[in-house]
Amino acid sequence: MPLPALERLSTYIRCLRQLEEEGTASVSSQDMERHTGVTAAQFRKDLSYFGEFGKRGIGYRVTELRERIARLLNIDEEQQVLLVGAGHLGSALIAYPGWHFYRFRIAAVFDKDPDKIGAAIRNHVVLDMERLEEIAASVGARIGILAVPAWDAQGVADRLVAAGIVGLINFAPTKLRLPPQVSVREVCFICELAILSHLVHHQPEKG
Amino acid sequence: MPLPALERLSTYIRCLRQLEEEGTASVSSQDMERHTGVTAAQFRKDLSYFGEFGKRGIGYRVTELRERIARLLNIDEEQQVLLVGAGHLGSALIAYPGWHFYRFRIAAVFDKDPDKIGAAIRNHVVLDMERLEEIAASVGARIGILAVPAWDAQGVADRLVAAGIVGLINFAPTKLRLPPQVSVREVCFICELAILSHLVHHQPEKG
Repeated sequence: MPLPALERLSTYIRCLRQLEEEGTASVSSQDMERHTGVTAAQFRKDLSYFGEFGKRGIGYRVTELRERIARLLNIDEEQQVLLVGAGHLGSALIAYPGWHFYRFRIAAVFDKDPDKIGAAIRNHVVLDMERLEEIAASVGARIGILAVPAWDAQGVADRLVAAGIVGLINFAPTKLRLPPQVSVREVCFICELAILSHLVHHQPEKG
Repeated sequence: MPLPALERLSTYIRCLRQLEEEGTASVSSQDMERHTGVTAAQFRKDLSYFGEFGKRGIGYRVTELRERIARLLNIDEEQQVLLVGAGHLGSALIAYPGWHFYRFRIAAVFDKDPDKIGAAIRNHVVLDMERLEEIAASVGARIGILAVPAWDAQGVADRLVAAGIVGLINFAPTKLRLPPQVSVREVCFICELAILSHLVHHQPEKG
């Protein structure tokens, strides 16, 4: 599946979750356009990846659609995730409310700072980075999250990959050099600010 | 300029900054492909937005290219940013090392939690949300960052927009309903995890 389609599916599922929480049972492609900004035509086209199942005039059942997209994204079974970095960002990630809904589980949190090791962040005790390889092997985690400073990111990423991690979320503002079989998603906050800066300077004046 | 081109430019500038820090003076489109994953052909095409200025066999001067892209993204002049939310995420954002390089300045940090108001995070004293409108008007900020829980995000966004903010970075896992003239960039951590989940399950097996 092409990456832009994947990115749209992740937007749809977030929206569908919100609709479910609000008690909405069915949704039309026009509703989805209003909620997500993706056109109704594009939405219907994306759903063709798993065969159309909306009913004309009724729309899509929210729960069914959410479950189908979850299967497609492979977030329908619990997955173990390793988090490296127990600073403010790591703590914010642990507190993030969506883990359970997406069936991700933080298997372990690591840091190399002796002041952080042994401390509890919510229900996670921060482990010494020395134990990374041992824990990675025992939980069989395939996904890792880098919430470490830029100068530490490449070294930690190399260790995660050597320990069997094949997918990384990188919050550090640095480009990682990794083997081609490792998937990386960069979360670049300052890139988003730069994009926003351009949009703000070029948006039409208010009426 | 189309959004995908903007997103690539923000990737280029991050890469060019890293090259500058490493002391690299010039870079070829092939180097850029290796560093960013964007093809050399696409890179050259994107640069056509401001006229080609690389020299065959020599490549692009890193600093000049970085400055040109900065002008195009409108990050060549200082911009005031309001940050709402002084929890772990807000604290992590304040500590982010790229603000100065991109010429963004955190003009003020707000929270509604009495335990946080008045506390100092690095060189920022957390202000009471009650002062949002007053401060927004006095600093003339146009960009705001939402680092608040999902249930608070819409209300805070509405206040920011009423106070003159026209661009928002939203970290809260909720879709905001805002006037069309307001630009929003969503940073959806769990969406990235969901996309990564699919990529990890569908990547070719290691040789």
